[in-house]
Amino acid sequence: MRLLAFSFFLTLAGVVPADAADSLRDQAKDLFQPIPASPPVLPGNPASAEKLKLGRMLYFEPRLSEAHNISCNSCHLVGLAGADGRPNSIGHNWQRGGRNAPTVFNAVFNTAQFWDGRAADLKEQAGGPIANPIEMGITKEHAVNQLKGIPGYLEAFKAAYPDAADPVTYGNIEGAIAVFEATLITPDAPFDRWLTGDDGALDEQQRQGLAVFIEKGCASCHNGINVGGGMYAPFGVVEKPGWEFLPPDDHGRLQVTKTVEDDYVFKVPTLRNIALTAPYFHSGHAWDLKQAVAIMGTAQLGEQLTPGEIDQVTAFLNSLTGRQPEIPFPVLPPSVASTPRPQP
Amino acid sequence: MRLLAFSFFLTLAGVVPADAADSLRDQAKDLFQPIPASPPVLPGNPASAEKLKLGRMLYFEPRLSEAHNISCNSCHLVGLAGADGRPNSIGHNWQRGGRNAPTVFNAVFNTAQFWDGRAADLKEQAGGPIANPIEMGITKEHAVNQLKGIPGYLEAFKAAYPDAADPVTYGNIEGAIAVFEATLITPDAPFDRWLTGDDGALDEQQRQGLAVFIEKGCASCHNGINVGGGMYAPFGVVEKPGWEFLPPDDHGRLQVTKTVEDDYVFKVPTLRNIALTAPYFHSGHAWDLKQAVAIMGTAQLGEQLTPGEIDQVTAFLNSLTGRQPEIPFPVLPPSVASTPRPQP
Repeated sequence: MRLLAFSFFLTLAGVVPADAADSLRDQAKDLFQPIPASPPVLPGNPASAEKLKLGRMLYFEPRLSEAHNISCNSCHLVGLAGADGRPNSIGHNWQRGGRNAPTVFNAVFNTAQFWDGRAADLKEQAGGPIANPIEMGITKEHAVNQLKGIPGYLEAFKAAYPDAADPVTYGNIEGAIAVFEATLITPDAPFDRWLTGDDGALDEQQRQGLAVFIEKGCASCHNGINVGGGMYAPFGVVEKPGWEFLPPDDHGRLQVTKTVEDDYVFKVPTLRNIALTAPYFHSGHAWDLKQAVAIMGTAQLGEQLTPGEIDQVTAFLNSLTGRQPEIPFPVLPPSVASTPRPQP
Repeated sequence: MRLLAFSFFLTLAGVVPADAADSLRDQAKDLFQPIPASPPVLPGNPASAEKLKLGRMLYFEPRLSEAHNISCNSCHLVGLAGADGRPNSIGHNWQRGGRNAPTVFNAVFNTAQFWDGRAADLKEQAGGPIANPIEMGITKEHAVNQLKGIPGYLEAFKAAYPDAADPVTYGNIEGAIAVFEATLITPDAPFDRWLTGDDGALDEQQRQGLAVFIEKGCASCHNGINVGGGMYAPFGVVEKPGWEFLPPDDHGRLQVTKTVEDDYVFKVPTLRNIALTAPYFHSGHAWDLKQAVAIMGTAQLGEQLTPGEIDQVTAFLNSLTGRQPEIPFPVLPPSVASTPRPQP
């Protein structure tokens, strides 16, 4: 299914001419969709003002970590395009995460979450790092008891889940965080404005870059609303990159599907806001977007892109930077004397 | 001078009757002032919209730390009343700070900064943790070069310091952070509303607590606009508390003044928002505000407060919680390929 989709788009990219602006936009419209102005509805997890407020609190809540010093926002900073600008993140006891922190911005539009797609959606993802011993390092039971020990949270959960007899559950923590994260979208990128008819939103070099992006086959994986995030692909379809970028001990989706076919297979990342979220790849060792574009050319497409093409594609990628949200840091409910205390 | 002031207020507290409401307010007005609605002007460091914006960015900027994962807000969270709710803070390489992180809220009204008063003002304080090897762990030179390597900061510093030939300096980093921090004030506490004439802002128990607070002598040190923050005092004027609260290896202001008279002397902390900022004392080992009140009674005043008095004083302290600011997390300027990279 993955390889079928791959071949289909390669073929598509090969047959459509890209010399006229209208034609380029027509091609682009077949491949991409703009980020909507409003957050999407999460199936089975309806939003409300109370749930959104709770989710924002929990997203910034360090008391969901064992030492009360790490929150979701520690590695997915709302001020750094939803990522943290490090190769991998630093978690509990200064342990390092295994992969580069992917951006939370627009993550709601991804087919699945994490680099290996092991979580189906934002709700399932949200609970992972909290209970991961090398990230926030708390247990699920501890997380629930922690919040139950803070009177302001008891009230906030009751308001967010008015029909629940026992509203403070791990699932409800995840659900509220997901509702907040679904609002972290970045509409109004130059590319989206161009896609919907604003001819001047992309300059000549960016349009050339888009044409290269389609013709060379980048768009065969990086497509859809997130210009990625919709499928899986081996890193190194044509040629495996060096160990610096593809460390041999991280087998990617193989660990999820237990299928050798998925060795070194990863979720194709979104390219939305990619100019803001260096370093690149799951290994986080490519610091220069142009370098990343060149490696993608050789590794995924067997194409040695020219410096001019790399500049063009990079210029196009810069047009994927959308309007960044400015999120108010929530006033968190205070601990009381009986609240569970941090690991000293 | 310190002890003179101490005796003066003790005497004052002893002679004024506290049975009538007007009389209590008159006494209180002699001792305390409300938090103003607007931030004060910093001498020699005029505010502007551009400097304030820059200061807010720098306050939340993890790239001012060696591993790009710690900011001012990591230990002085704007969502946790300007503190972090830990005995001591966790810094670079998971090292622990020596003392409890004091709140940044209303710190502009303190006579000096840090528990030992080693910084004269917010500007001098701001640069300390950045360059402290156990806190943010970066050098001053590195901090300046880090920001110079981010194009958006070059612009932001030019806008904030339009007359400077070379605006990105360590002093200007400190100055902008100080201007932002000066806005972190919490007016409109019930006590302030009562102080300025709103009889119903304090309940009976809180007024009784205020009377005890004055009569017993708490207000001899905890007075002024910050109900503290204006002078130094030995921890254990009458009776040294146990080592848990007064660790013998932290000699406090002695290390600043090099005078034995200042052994175990600390800045009297503000009691503004004290209900939100457990744990208490420079050692951060008192988790219960009532316990802290009781210890202050025996250690500073030689008074075994009754449970009823402790409840009253604690109720009064709860009235010092002001309006908490909700600060927008700033959109930080992106790194580029040439930006100095984090310690891996």
